[in-house]
Amino acid sequence: MLLYFVTGNKNKFNEIKRIIPGIKQLKMDLPEIQSLNPEEIIRYKLKAASRRYKGQFLIDDTCLCLKAMGKLPGPLIKWFMEAIGYEGLYKIAKSLNEFSAEASVVIGYSDKKGNIKFFKGSQKGKIVEPRGTLGWGWDPIFLPKGSTKTYGEMTIKEKNMISMRKRAAEKLRKYLERN
Amino acid sequence: MLLYFVTGNKNKFNEIKRIIPGIKQLKMDLPEIQSLNPEEIIRYKLKAASRRYKGQFLIDDTCLCLKAMGKLPGPLIKWFMEAIGYEGLYKIAKSLNEFSAEASVVIGYSDKKGNIKFFKGSQKGKIVEPRGTLGWGWDPIFLPKGSTKTYGEMTIKEKNMISMRKRAAEKLRKYLERN
Repeated sequence: MLLYFVTGNKNKFNEIKRIIPGIKQLKMDLPEIQSLNPEEIIRYKLKAASRRYKGQFLIDDTCLCLKAMGKLPGPLIKWFMEAIGYEGLYKIAKSLNEFSAEASVVIGYSDKKGNIKFFKGSQKGKIVEPRGTLGWGWDPIFLPKGSTKTYGEMTIKEKNMISMRKRAAEKLRKYLERN
Repeated sequence: MLLYFVTGNKNKFNEIKRIIPGIKQLKMDLPEIQSLNPEEIIRYKLKAASRRYKGQFLIDDTCLCLKAMGKLPGPLIKWFMEAIGYEGLYKIAKSLNEFSAEASVVIGYSDKKGNIKFFKGSQKGKIVEPRGTLGWGWDPIFLPKGSTKTYGEMTIKEKNMISMRKRAAEKLRKYLERN
């Protein structure tokens, strides 16, 4: 039974395909519900996908949590980017004088029976003044712990070496091999 | 054909019922999608409601927009409340030194053919240091323009006199009378 990674993003797809070669890309517009819990958001999408297609599915969700803002933006990061951009996020961290942050990717896997498992990769770091023009989204303000470069200053190759998505996918690969 | 106000909140229901006496309360758990646009969120819920029941439906959504944060929190206000509370929101406004805000309620109405119309009531105001123990949610930090009391310092009667929900409902009532 085919394993589909539901995403419109070719780069994300290629990153996971390097780890789990058998996957197929599937573009599908799925409802994204409001929650601070990425697993809840993914679960809803996986169930919607299973109602429309036969198959096994992967869906991922990216979070950026600022210590200054509790669990926010969390999985709601894209709305923060739309409303205030990374400059706005940096401004909030700076004015609250609290720069600790954690970025994470959760991958949800729905098997042929519709059972759902989650796999998480995370990266601690700091919010810094925007640096770098590589990457996308909030990359220029995220400085991973132990690095001197922000995500925005890393090439794709450098970024992939410490990729949260990759770490989540490695956990998933091990799970698939055992089952 | 019955007109249902889909809400679990008895107070909201009673407030609208005073303006549109014919409505019935309907409690239904509907998916709330991520968006900064309340109309998009309501439209999705109204369509889901129409698939499950026969009838006409009303669904409302409340926004609080801080000038300091673009359109945020907007309809995502409940997640801000969960993550940082009104104290956290006040702290952000204060540290960014920008207190202007606008609160609004949008009511979506789905008629017997499934056509959808929106009615909005809004209230400009300021974010202030928390005051008052009445009301709920972010009431203690919202000072409506022209008032010396925050929502948190107003009785239900006082608050209803300048209610955004009431203003949206009055627009809806006029529309229903014309159609």
